[in-house]
Amino acid sequence: MVPVLHFRQGKPGDSPGVEHDEIQKLPSGSVPVYVSCIDYSAEQTLFQDVDDLDDFLVHHRPEWSAVRWINIDGLSDMEVIHALAAKYNLHPLAVEDLLHIPERPKVESIGGYESEFQARLFIIARMLQIHDHELENEQISIFLGHKTVLTFQESHGDVWDPIRQRIQMKGSRLRLNDASFLVYALLDAVVDHCFPILEHYGDLLEDLEDDVLANPQRMVITDIHRIKRDLLMLRRVAWPMREVISFLHREPHECMSDVTRVYMRDIYDHIVQIIDIIETYRELANDLTETYMSSVSNRMNEVMKVLTIIGTIFIPLTFLAGVYGMNFHYFPELSKSWAYPAFWAVCVVLAVSMLIFFRRRGWL
Amino acid sequence: MVPVLHFRQGKPGDSPGVEHDEIQKLPSGSVPVYVSCIDYSAEQTLFQDVDDLDDFLVHHRPEWSAVRWINIDGLSDMEVIHALAAKYNLHPLAVEDLLHIPERPKVESIGGYESEFQARLFIIARMLQIHDHELENEQISIFLGHKTVLTFQESHGDVWDPIRQRIQMKGSRLRLNDASFLVYALLDAVVDHCFPILEHYGDLLEDLEDDVLANPQRMVITDIHRIKRDLLMLRRVAWPMREVISFLHREPHECMSDVTRVYMRDIYDHIVQIIDIIETYRELANDLTETYMSSVSNRMNEVMKVLTIIGTIFIPLTFLAGVYGMNFHYFPELSKSWAYPAFWAVCVVLAVSMLIFFRRRGWL
Amino acid sequence: MVPVLHFRQGKPGDSPGVEHDEIQKLPSGSVPVYVSCIDYSAEQTLFQDVDDLDDFLVHHRPEWSAVRWINIDGLSDMEVIHALAAKYNLHPLAVEDLLHIPERPKVESIGGYESEFQARLFIIARMLQIHDHELENEQISIFLGHKTVLTFQESHGDVWDPIRQRIQMKGSRLRLNDASFLVYALLDAVVDHCFPILEHYGDLLEDLEDDVLANPQRMVITDIHRIKRDLLMLRRVAWPMREVISFLHREPHECMSDVTRVYMRDIYDHIVQIIDIIETYRELANDLTETYMSSVSNRMNEVMKVLTIIGTIFIPLTFLAGVYGMNFHYFPELSKSWAYPAFWAVCVVLAVSMLIFFRRRGWL
Amino acid sequence: MVPVLHFRQGKPGDSPGVEHDEIQKLPSGSVPVYVSCIDYSAEQTLFQDVDDLDDFLVHHRPEWSAVRWINIDGLSDMEVIHALAAKYNLHPLAVEDLLHIPERPKVESIGGYESEFQARLFIIARMLQIHDHELENEQISIFLGHKTVLTFQESHGDVWDPIRQRIQMKGSRLRLNDASFLVYALLDAVVDHCFPILEHYGDLLEDLEDDVLANPQRMVITDIHRIKRDLLMLRRVAWPMREVISFLHREPHECMSDVTRVYMRDIYDHIVQIIDIIETYRELANDLTETYMSSVSNRMNEVMKVLTIIGTIFIPLTFLAGVYGMNFHYFPELSKSWAYPAFWAVCVVLAVSMLIFFRRRGWL
Amino acid sequence: MVPVLHFRQGKPGDSPGVEHDEIQKLPSGSVPVYVSCIDYSAEQTLFQDVDDLDDFLVHHRPEWSAVRWINIDGLSDMEVIHALAAKYNLHPLAVEDLLHIPERPKVESIGGYESEFQARLFIIARMLQIHDHELENEQISIFLGHKTVLTFQESHGDVWDPIRQRIQMKGSRLRLNDASFLVYALLDAVVDHCFPILEHYGDLLEDLEDDVLANPQRMVITDIHRIKRDLLMLRRVAWPMREVISFLHREPHECMSDVTRVYMRDIYDHIVQIIDIIETYRELANDLTETYMSSVSNRMNEVMKVLTIIGTIFIPLTFLAGVYGMNFHYFPELSKSWAYPAFWAVCVVLAVSMLIFFRRRGWL
Repeated sequence: MVPVLHFRQGKPGDSPGVEHDEIQKLPSGSVPVYVSCIDYSAEQTLFQDVDDLDDFLVHHRPEWSAVRWINIDGLSDMEVIHALAAKYNLHPLAVEDLLHIPERPKVESIGGYESEFQARLFIIARMLQIHDHELENEQISIFLGHKTVLTFQESHGDVWDPIRQRIQMKGSRLRLNDASFLVYALLDAVVDHCFPILEHYGDLLEDLEDDVLANPQRMVITDIHRIKRDLLMLRRVAWPMREVISFLHREPHECMSDVTRVYMRDIYDHIVQIIDIIETYRELANDLTETYMSSVSNRMNEVMKVLTIIGTIFIPLTFLAGVYGMNFHYFPELSKSWAYPAFWAVCVVLAVSMLIFFRRRGWL
Repeated sequence: MVPVLHFRQGKPGDSPGVEHDEIQKLPSGSVPVYVSCIDYSAEQTLFQDVDDLDDFLVHHRPEWSAVRWINIDGLSDMEVIHALAAKYNLHPLAVEDLLHIPERPKVESIGGYESEFQARLFIIARMLQIHDHELENEQISIFLGHKTVLTFQESHGDVWDPIRQRIQMKGSRLRLNDASFLVYALLDAVVDHCFPILEHYGDLLEDLEDDVLANPQRMVITDIHRIKRDLLMLRRVAWPMREVISFLHREPHECMSDVTRVYMRDIYDHIVQIIDIIETYRELANDLTETYMSSVSNRMNEVMKVLTIIGTIFIPLTFLAGVYGMNFHYFPELSKSWAYPAFWAVCVVLAVSMLIFFRRRGWL
Repeated sequence: MVPVLHFRQGKPGDSPGVEHDEIQKLPSGSVPVYVSCIDYSAEQTLFQDVDDLDDFLVHHRPEWSAVRWINIDGLSDMEVIHALAAKYNLHPLAVEDLLHIPERPKVESIGGYESEFQARLFIIARMLQIHDHELENEQISIFLGHKTVLTFQESHGDVWDPIRQRIQMKGSRLRLNDASFLVYALLDAVVDHCFPILEHYGDLLEDLEDDVLANPQRMVITDIHRIKRDLLMLRRVAWPMREVISFLHREPHECMSDVTRVYMRDIYDHIVQIIDIIETYRELANDLTETYMSSVSNRMNEVMKVLTIIGTIFIPLTFLAGVYGMNFHYFPELSKSWAYPAFWAVCVVLAVSMLIFFRRRGWL
Repeated sequence: MVPVLHFRQGKPGDSPGVEHDEIQKLPSGSVPVYVSCIDYSAEQTLFQDVDDLDDFLVHHRPEWSAVRWINIDGLSDMEVIHALAAKYNLHPLAVEDLLHIPERPKVESIGGYESEFQARLFIIARMLQIHDHELENEQISIFLGHKTVLTFQESHGDVWDPIRQRIQMKGSRLRLNDASFLVYALLDAVVDHCFPILEHYGDLLEDLEDDVLANPQRMVITDIHRIKRDLLMLRRVAWPMREVISFLHREPHECMSDVTRVYMRDIYDHIVQIIDIIETYRELANDLTETYMSSVSNRMNEVMKVLTIIGTIFIPLTFLAGVYGMNFHYFPELSKSWAYPAFWAVCVVLAVSMLIFFRRRGWL
Repeated sequence: MVPVLHFRQGKPGDSPGVEHDEIQKLPSGSVPVYVSCIDYSAEQTLFQDVDDLDDFLVHHRPEWSAVRWINIDGLSDMEVIHALAAKYNLHPLAVEDLLHIPERPKVESIGGYESEFQARLFIIARMLQIHDHELENEQISIFLGHKTVLTFQESHGDVWDPIRQRIQMKGSRLRLNDASFLVYALLDAVVDHCFPILEHYGDLLEDLEDDVLANPQRMVITDIHRIKRDLLMLRRVAWPMREVISFLHREPHECMSDVTRVYMRDIYDHIVQIIDIIETYRELANDLTETYMSSVSNRMNEVMKVLTIIGTIFIPLTFLAGVYGMNFHYFPELSKSWAYPAFWAVCVVLAVSMLIFFRRRGWL
């Protein structure tokens, strides 16, 4: 299956950004949307499941809250997104991007455009997971403000549970740092989750290599093809992620603490290593295809040689046997008593000289 | 069909630019040229079909008109182009480029050359459409002045009807912004129209992949070839478009408002994503060709094996049968009563030992 | 035929540049050298064929002459080149380069080295032409001084006749501009002449594509090979030409007027488009080779299948017929009256079950 | 076997860096960890095997010691690493990287982050060795302080014994220079050890080339595949090593003496040459695969030709012999006395005309 | 044969540079070392063969000597190299590089490191020659001081005899310029000697192309492989040479006169052209391999078709003949007088219908 492309709901030529009066036109929620909020500081944490968003947004956050992380699972309910966009002054183009699936991973500093925005850094990433031997990827949108992080996911289920646990653990580095460090931890979890996925493909390639070298069979080529396609998809995700992380590591930004930028370097090294492994695996898969093709050719060559040897030895002999099976009335050889032994002698001489000829040509 | 190249009407060595006295030499209109004009401001809009161009150009535009968009369908009538070039001081090289089909997408800031020009930014883009399963592309030339936009198309029919509708919709962002925002909207429509086209090719590749893996047949390879060729053509359009959009986003220009340049970033992200998808599809198509070749080789190998097995088992047996069909008078075996059963025994032993040999070699 | 390489007349290690006392050693003229001179200004033109070069060089040029263009066809007469090099102070390395065939297209600003030189810009270009379906290329050397242009060609015949006509046409842009504009016009003619050549290859590829898809035959592959080789040659010319034009467009130079540099941009766009088309054609040719290979494989597969089906059905049957043609005295079946019909029955059953087996395997 | 990937012990999402309270959770030492310490100055050297690390770390180093080199073989004992990290203020991210296997070769200046750190330059390299025809690579982590070098290896056994000997040799350059020169010597030994490895692969390729050209057989392709895979692995190590060395050569750093940076240039030249050779070998291996495939195709072609010639000559003749073996009662030819000689004449004529036909087609 | 790699005499980990006390350990001279010295100025020249190096080095050079060129053939005598290194203050790393074979072509400005060095520019180049159809390359090391040039060659015989002749020729440019111009002349000779070598490969490719297109045979593929391997080797030499020449042309250096740097531009153009030709030839060779493969496939296809046509026509007929050769007692057809003619009729009908079927499928 070719990576499926779902495009923005609007038609080309439609208004850019999401204008206020268009929101109700967007398809509203088949998958229920689930909003959760975590507030934490070095001393305290508060985990809430938000059922009544309007009510939640009206209330101020607790005074002690150093970082507020609001996570939204599901993008089907435009009212939720609209309410959050209004509350946190999300840029219309950013909102459009978060609804536009798939969007290429990217990072944008949006604080500069209109100074009242609270969310000043907008990141799109992709979370990769393997379900039932199929590579799946989900779009993650992250808004970072001074003390607030908003994350939007396409569906339920993510790779962030260890982070939630670390938030609850008093004295952990997460609790001691600011909102940008949370963004670092989220991205780190997303990027590091690629390693077990790559390990999975590494194992597959190793198995296939054994198969190709030992016993090339039909299914191998389709398996190699599937791996190549998945690696292509991984690469399409990894390269822009590298740009995103590089930007976050390199560019100073009012919302990014210096500590976080140092740690970003660590993710950067990992994403570079991931790209390295992907490219190596792709080359390995290509070499494997070539080796497989050669093996098949070789095997066919061997098969052909056997057929040719058997054929070229027996075809003339069969002809000869056919000749002496003819019923011509005048057929002098037939009445000779030496004829039958002579026939066998001729056969043996022919076959042996053929075999010598083949051996000389290096076919045996 | 290889992307057809139509070249400029003149011969190489001809005068550069379009000099005044050469205009009447150019082929005049087989396809009727159609000119339309839209004036709009935040409060008012006026849509006109221009039948008498001279009369139209003599009159001043309405005072309330914030943006005037003149669209010309068809390039066959040189008098129309000449009249507009004179009225809006279009640079001779730009006029030559708009008539030179196909010209590579590009953008040029022409305000700097001669200061009286009203049109200061000249953009060539390509509009892609799929008609009857054939990829077609049309050249679009856009001139942007301070309050005026001129667009030239090769033929009738475009992807801009939603924009015309949005101009009529009071309070839409288009109505509230300047001429450069209209150019943004036009380019956005052109670029975003690539997504459904790519989706079309994605579907084709997905179908072909299923075919290749399940049931490789003759036609598949010509289909893959066609897709590759079309993707090559798409790429030839997308790469220079990327440069054009990047220039418009990056370079400040007197006619481009800051708001528009922010929005240009959005198109830029889309064109990068389009290029990404094109390159991925090309690699997928290449992988598919290889997989197809392997499948065919494999299948042939299988066919050969069956032929070889049948052949190598029966050819010696047929020879043997031929031998005992010979009519030699002296033929001791024939008179033995155990000869016939012995013949069958030999046949069975030969066949079975052959099968064992093949199984040992891994051919069964 | 691989692009032939003719190298400089001297041996490696010889003196660099052309020293005065070495000139008479160089091979002198088998092809007659032909020198022509055109003087023009906005008001007047003078076309001369120069027979007596020494006499010509002694005389001063007419006072009204704004631009003098001396064209030399043929490089065999070292005395002519020596006389011109002395008269116009051509740098020895430049003279060596113009005699060194093939030299890579390049541009050099030589005014800076020794201040008395009159010719300050030295350009090497290649003129491509198709003669008898063979791609030929000729080296063009252009020296540009303040009011003088010298052009050296390998042989007679060029693509500049339209320029000569435009020089004679009063009021043409050429007549109104300076010497650098003439150089622009010469290069423009050379570059634009690539378009019909590419169109020729585009047509060839289109024909070959139809052949490959409809009816792959022997000659196709050699034709594709020839096209690829020619495109390789075109590319080797186009890439350095791009650098040359880019330099002329980008770098200010005392001999290049601002108007000319603006017009150079136009050639630059064309050469970029030419490179684009060449690369696209090469990829198309590569795809075509692959498609061709697949078609041949496929066709062979089909042929093999038919052979295998016929073979595997009839080989066992022939064996059976051979068996009942044996002359054993003790042969119980022969005397049964149901034997012959039974034989046919067995044949039909065997053949039908084979066919069913093949259909199950998907070979029919 | 595809390069195996072992990943960090923690799960994705775990805390970044190694926090104090997590250390005891890490798997503790199956392989015994071995720590050694070398102190040297121009006059004196001291080699110690450290059995009691705590005791060792409490004592001050000898006053005369200009350079202290502590080497740790084995990473399984977290307490050792923790003790050293505490003593030398190793950055938590660096400690995580040294435990994260495989980490991409890299260099980091960590002095800038927190000013109390004694170890200011952190280098990860890979040491390649060939054991039993298998390419093995081991991760080396190097910390450089002003007068101290710490090296961590995955296991016992390294390529540094010549360096230990040179430290003992009075007056050697190592003894006369500072700690950064020791790092240079360590990296130089690691990099130069690639040359014999490459020589090994060069010999293998040379042998394979002879095999492919003289006598292409089954095993060749799997051998080429193994070499390609190993070269891929070498390349994955060499490229980032190049970046590391380039950084050390280029960037001034408080711990790097000027002399060392000059010598780094020497390693840089070697690593560039190594990359060069790797790329050349990969292209050679690719060419070899292609040549092999062509040889196999060719050989098959030859085999097929023999089969076809024998087959096409004898198949019609066998048919003819079969015809005259038929038992029709009415069979006029059989009774003619010229029939049998005529049969042979027809056979000879048919065979000869076939051979002529084949020779005309160039098959003989 | 894969480009053989000889490595430095020491083991990895040995001391960098060549320390004084290690020199006697190096293998001393199997090939006799030959030293010659040429002094020249505009007025005078002196050619000496140096037999007693110590005596030679003690004496001062003649006062009139503007340039002294000492050439050393053979690197086996360490005492010679040591004496020269001491006399001219050669940097230990440079001496190591000149003994390290093969070293990548490179240039180093070593004047800056220690100010007493007389030799301030160190160049490693490779001299390519064709001996007995084998491409050979020899390492050349050049040291340039203010008035002195030292050249080290691996063995006797070089491409510099024309330069020696030009030094003897009074008034030649060499005699009039300084030491850097001599270096230019030496490098120019080395680089220009690649042109006849490339011409050699161009001729080979042209011959092979004719062979492939007209009559593809076994040996062709091994010839193409050899050419590709040699071109790979040429490329490995040419690319770093380009960097060397580019550095000499671009970077001002106290020992390089301005005149020489202008002339360096000429070598640079040639080396760029050489790389161009190498890359083109490699692509041609690749295209040739593909074309060859296609030709072989095609030819096999043709062969297969003939076999199939003959086979599929005669196999059923032979079966039929076999049937009527059976000896069943009850065999009604045999006694019919029309049976034999009917048999022939059936044969003709079958054969003709087969041929029609094949023609319909496009196999004839």
